[in-house]
Amino acid sequence: MLGVGEMNWPANVTIKEVGPRDGLQNEKAFVSTDDKIAWINQLSGTGMKSIEITSFVNPKWIPALADAAEVAKGIERMPGIIYSALVPNRQGLERALEADVDEVAVFMSASETHNHKNINKSISATFPILREVAQEALSAGKSVRGYVSTVFGCPYEGPISVDEVIRVSEALFDMGIGELSLGDTIGIANPKQVQGVLDILLKRFDARKLALHFHDTRGAALANILVSMDMGITTFDASVGGLGGCPYAPGASGNVASEDLLYMLDAMGIQTGVNPEKLLDAARFIQGKIGRALPSRNLKVGSSNENG
Amino acid sequence: MLGVGEMNWPANVTIKEVGPRDGLQNEKAFVSTDDKIAWINQLSGTGMKSIEITSFVNPKWIPALADAAEVAKGIERMPGIIYSALVPNRQGLERALEADVDEVAVFMSASETHNHKNINKSISATFPILREVAQEALSAGKSVRGYVSTVFGCPYEGPISVDEVIRVSEALFDMGIGELSLGDTIGIANPKQVQGVLDILLKRFDARKLALHFHDTRGAALANILVSMDMGITTFDASVGGLGGCPYAPGASGNVASEDLLYMLDAMGIQTGVNPEKLLDAARFIQGKIGRALPSRNLKVGSSNENG
Repeated sequence: MLGVGEMNWPANVTIKEVGPRDGLQNEKAFVSTDDKIAWINQLSGTGMKSIEITSFVNPKWIPALADAAEVAKGIERMPGIIYSALVPNRQGLERALEADVDEVAVFMSASETHNHKNINKSISATFPILREVAQEALSAGKSVRGYVSTVFGCPYEGPISVDEVIRVSEALFDMGIGELSLGDTIGIANPKQVQGVLDILLKRFDARKLALHFHDTRGAALANILVSMDMGITTFDASVGGLGGCPYAPGASGNVASEDLLYMLDAMGIQTGVNPEKLLDAARFIQGKIGRALPSRNLKVGSSNENG
Repeated sequence: MLGVGEMNWPANVTIKEVGPRDGLQNEKAFVSTDDKIAWINQLSGTGMKSIEITSFVNPKWIPALADAAEVAKGIERMPGIIYSALVPNRQGLERALEADVDEVAVFMSASETHNHKNINKSISATFPILREVAQEALSAGKSVRGYVSTVFGCPYEGPISVDEVIRVSEALFDMGIGELSLGDTIGIANPKQVQGVLDILLKRFDARKLALHFHDTRGAALANILVSMDMGITTFDASVGGLGGCPYAPGASGNVASEDLLYMLDAMGIQTGVNPEKLLDAARFIQGKIGRALPSRNLKVGSSNENG
């Protein structure tokens, strides 16, 4: 029995590593294909069960991930790990299928303006494109994951109505996606808002089919994850090192750091299957390649312990 | 009515700024007396109602705060703000009273080993010294605040029993302290532990007389504050910029950043009376004097917005 004011946390949580895609796509440094492959192989040894390895968008838009096919073909595939890639359209899907990824991730925004700036189409005009991608991916035996961005706020429109999040989410589930990742794209969510939004969404969607994707731009990512777990969410996206930055606030922190999330979960006795030392090794590796101190808190402690 | 899994948060929270003491005492850089005074005057304009301005310990132990008396005498005293200073013993108290601080803060550890390393005395031998300080401070018309460090873990002993925290806390309240600040000295607390410890402590102590003092060494400070608020705590210590570091992990993050805490509270609609822009100005000022990027998340966003 829980007392008044006591929170309830799950026994198990899945951390999905999105550093090789969401992390790198927002970094200025170009990481070589060989280094990407070595890093993803290292991540495969951490116990992570899902790694988003790249994005098959037009290299013109994201030069940092222009080597998507080489990366997807070059990595070792460990049994039991889902290797996922972002796909914006049919051309991207063809490349992703040719490179034989396990899962295809489609994305759109709950904000009309952000969707237009990001995809150059209205929300309604994006649906048929993603539906085609999802159906072909499913036909090819791939699982499909959906991302909705700007769920907790848009850099152009400000607050986003939960009704709009529901409309986009339902459309994505109708396309056959297995899991929906709700993105705090600019890192402005707060725990009260997360509780309020989830309270509404969980009346319509199964908590086991939702993932939360927080950026730590304002420092509240772990607090937002804490309240999400209390509401029944057990899957979270994260990037080792806290890679990624924010395209709307240069210099700011990126995705919540996988090792900071893991530290909190481990300390709370929540099982993830991820090895903290190996995860820190993978964070150190990519920090060395990026060539600047990454925002992760635990990476600094680990580094210090080594020196001191 | 709250539903299952819903958290409960207060309408008002008090942030106590401890940067000029706990922040600076763990920084290598020596900030000049004039800069300290200018900075504290700036903090006085943010809306903070309590500022811990310095420490009257022996300057041999903390050279960074050797100018305690000059700082205390040099700052402008704004009406309605409590200017507090750390005091270890009777000699320190005499200097603090001579400098006319409003509040005296006494400190000890819940860990026998940490207390010995920090104060060079056993816990039992520390009590009479602090009792004398507290009684003389109260006689002089000052309020007295108590700190218990290593509440959530000790760098030497590891886990600390709640019974030991209770023993030290009761002794401090018996001395007449008005508020007790429970310190996560090395920043290893996790939300489940915080909930468990507070669940026990709040059966003995009034939530209104407890403050929580988290370091962000491992990134979980705001998550720990979130669960503390859910348990009824409404006072938190913080340092602008996230100043302070950790003496046991060189290079690691320090106190939770006041502006990161304020961002989360503001976004949740929790009133603090603190102006976020003025707080960021004070963080930028001290970052310039310290001469390295401080760990605060919002300071990076703010700086970026200025540049971009």
